[in-house]
Amino acid sequence: MVKPWKEIDSDIEYSCNWFSVQRTRLLSPKNNVEHNFHHLLQHDCVNIIALTEKKEVLTVHQYRHTIDRISLETPGGVIDASDPSPLDAAKRELREETGYISDNWHVLGTFHANPAVMNNTCHSFLALQARKMADPDLDLTEDLETELISLPGIVDRIENGDITHGITLASFLKFEFFRIKNPELF
Amino acid sequence: MVKPWKEIDSDIEYSCNWFSVQRTRLLSPKNNVEHNFHHLLQHDCVNIIALTEKKEVLTVHQYRHTIDRISLETPGGVIDASDPSPLDAAKRELREETGYISDNWHVLGTFHANPAVMNNTCHSFLALQARKMADPDLDLTEDLETELISLPGIVDRIENGDITHGITLASFLKFEFFRIKNPELF
Repeated sequence: MVKPWKEIDSDIEYSCNWFSVQRTRLLSPKNNVEHNFHHLLQHDCVNIIALTEKKEVLTVHQYRHTIDRISLETPGGVIDASDPSPLDAAKRELREETGYISDNWHVLGTFHANPAVMNNTCHSFLALQARKMADPDLDLTEDLETELISLPGIVDRIENGDITHGITLASFLKFEFFRIKNPELF
Repeated sequence: MVKPWKEIDSDIEYSCNWFSVQRTRLLSPKNNVEHNFHHLLQHDCVNIIALTEKKEVLTVHQYRHTIDRISLETPGGVIDASDPSPLDAAKRELREETGYISDNWHVLGTFHANPAVMNNTCHSFLALQARKMADPDLDLTEDLETELISLPGIVDRIENGDITHGITLASFLKFEFFRIKNPELF
């Protein structure tokens, strides 16, 4: 039976606006070996699969310098301290990034973006009957463009490599399970 | 049309055994604003969905200090410099973490684990007719246990929150698409 490792000590070795790096010395319960691990402390995030009345998925094109390409993704972002709940953060991010709103929200579930190196939880939501109410409200560091894509089109765009964001893919798996369980909504 | 941002300068602000943090000053082509971004430089990784002859999925239980819980995942890890290819890395990781091998490998596709903050690519593979050939070959910092789970059981374990690793979830979405396209293999 795998057991939790015991924490000996830890400190923050680096910080920037986006994350901190924590070093932690852990003791393996299996063999009493101590080892230093490093991981990111990050804010939890939200990801939104928003479908219009026509069942088109709202996606955003965004330049990702990390991979030096325009990435096609579902809207999302970090939960701010001022967001009362993950759902409120999802509503805010959808409105800011796309100008769309919805009165019909569903929880798709939570997952960990990458628990090998980061501590954050991602909350996935489904917004149905999403409709455009305003222009996006982007800050100076954001440059996004929206595209509506049919559900079969989403499969094509994943398979042809247009959609490669792991969090978007994980959200679509949660969405597939939700859709199978709730066919009356689609 | 969203355009790539222009890099002004960059440097490495932090490094540990697992990753480095790169700061990059970028110029937005939309509004000529310069902004510093920070992201992780990480090795590319592999993730393996291995099915036995009985169509059971090979999973591993592993303590993840980042989220302080035992995480249920598909096998995987970083590609070493000594791995001739991502497929070789997948074969090595599967053998080391579980003691299983396979002669029947398929490419499920690639994705980016989290392009908002890290640069690495994840290569997902499917191994069919996987069979146990040896005990796992774990180093002192690893403590894993394997569990074979049926395909319907995997859905349950995702839905009940046992499986929360974003890379594992993204791999399962790729697997679902592969299964639909290649029903004769299942």
